[in-house]
Amino acid sequence: MTNTYLWNPAARRWQTGNSVKSDDRGLSYGDGLFETLRLKPDGTCPLWHWHRQRLVQGLVALDFPINALALIDEAIEQAPRQGTAAKLVITRGTGPRGYLPPAEPQLTVIWQLFTAPDWAHNRCPEGFDCQFSDIRLSQQPLLAGIKHLNRLEQVLCRQRMPDGHQEAIMLDQDDWVIEGCMSNIFLMEGQKIITPDLSRCGVNGVIRRWLINQTSVTEASVSAERLLKSDAVLMTNSLNGVIHVRSVGSRRYDHNPEIRELQRSLQELFV
Amino acid sequence: MTNTYLWNPAARRWQTGNSVKSDDRGLSYGDGLFETLRLKPDGTCPLWHWHRQRLVQGLVALDFPINALALIDEAIEQAPRQGTAAKLVITRGTGPRGYLPPAEPQLTVIWQLFTAPDWAHNRCPEGFDCQFSDIRLSQQPLLAGIKHLNRLEQVLCRQRMPDGHQEAIMLDQDDWVIEGCMSNIFLMEGQKIITPDLSRCGVNGVIRRWLINQTSVTEASVSAERLLKSDAVLMTNSLNGVIHVRSVGSRRYDHNPEIRELQRSLQELFV
Repeated sequence: MTNTYLWNPAARRWQTGNSVKSDDRGLSYGDGLFETLRLKPDGTCPLWHWHRQRLVQGLVALDFPINALALIDEAIEQAPRQGTAAKLVITRGTGPRGYLPPAEPQLTVIWQLFTAPDWAHNRCPEGFDCQFSDIRLSQQPLLAGIKHLNRLEQVLCRQRMPDGHQEAIMLDQDDWVIEGCMSNIFLMEGQKIITPDLSRCGVNGVIRRWLINQTSVTEASVSAERLLKSDAVLMTNSLNGVIHVRSVGSRRYDHNPEIRELQRSLQELFV
Repeated sequence: MTNTYLWNPAARRWQTGNSVKSDDRGLSYGDGLFETLRLKPDGTCPLWHWHRQRLVQGLVALDFPINALALIDEAIEQAPRQGTAAKLVITRGTGPRGYLPPAEPQLTVIWQLFTAPDWAHNRCPEGFDCQFSDIRLSQQPLLAGIKHLNRLEQVLCRQRMPDGHQEAIMLDQDDWVIEGCMSNIFLMEGQKIITPDLSRCGVNGVIRRWLINQTSVTEASVSAERLLKSDAVLMTNSLNGVIHVRSVGSRRYDHNPEIRELQRSLQELFV
């Protein structure tokens, strides 16, 4: 059950609605951004500041108009909250044919409310099984980190994920481990936590930043060999939370108390 | 003036309409393809077979359902033709949240009819002025050549194009010349015509393939130095046709009879 709303900038309020113009630049070029938020039962979003920070980075990267952030802040302030998760989509709105954005675009802002799935560690207590995807991420430093609407590589990766796997690990064109199809990835080497550097590709996830802020994490170039040699692997995503990776191909990893502790402290934020 | 139609697969006909669902995968992920066609005054599209061939490559690359091509063929057969140009957009339709496409997607097919601009060599007889863009194309062999809806690199490039320029030349992350922002590019070395290899990125344009089929063209890795040392440069695109490049930065190129002959023979197809 999803309820969808569209921001009406003239009336400065949300309206029930489920359609966008066929010449929306989000559809034509993927010219926009999105965020998937988990909400507390009272409708608040404890990690909104991280979502907002990534949106700001995206608005700058795509050179959206300077007033876009104020519009988003006002829309979020007024957003309906009858759900436990929401997807926010922001596009550069409609425009004439051609790649050049209008001088004064009127943004399309979509708010979809739905029921969040249970945390992945409850749904899938044994952890995720995955393997390396054969879909390599292309490198584009100008778009790295942000959550834009150009997601064909993720679609290709998800299509090719074998039955029984919950995730896949994506390498870039230079064979560096970057992320999961819909998650960030962390490896533990003893007590040390390492996560791939995302300066050339990958999405800088909200739970990734929460975790980096929460504990000591080193961002580094990570090879597949290093991942396979590590002591434990975990993945993060806004809806799944923190999840232990049980296997990458034939390599099996044990669960551990540090991962359980991260699961607990994240879950507590949403009570 | 643009007239927009949506294909109704149940009724097997086009309907006037200008909106798509906000959960269309074309909007969510850029999960689709498009073609921009120039039409003859009688509404036919002389180069349709090249557009169709690229669509087939795109449908295969994105793993669209096997019946997608038959649907597109039927839709194109019945498409309204009261215009001199059309944009065809095909997406994987709506779907539940998440990257995984529905098992049996119902495609969204959009047909926008409009008036084609005059050929670029008539509008801009002195030729195009351009420079190298600082937006580098990422390399993704699985998506190279096809005209999918993930076009943020082109949006970024077009935004940064200086006033007075009609095009920009895009290099890839390894410094190879690939294409223009909205055109393919060719260089002439004496009587030899060379065009960049598009196996890692770039759009394999319809006029590019017409030209390769029309005359002897070598596909090769092209460096910026090679482009600047060449005797003439031209660009191609479905609406602009074949256009002489007058300048790339401070390097100026002469027009030549071979380019004029290609302009004439392309234009003749559309009379």
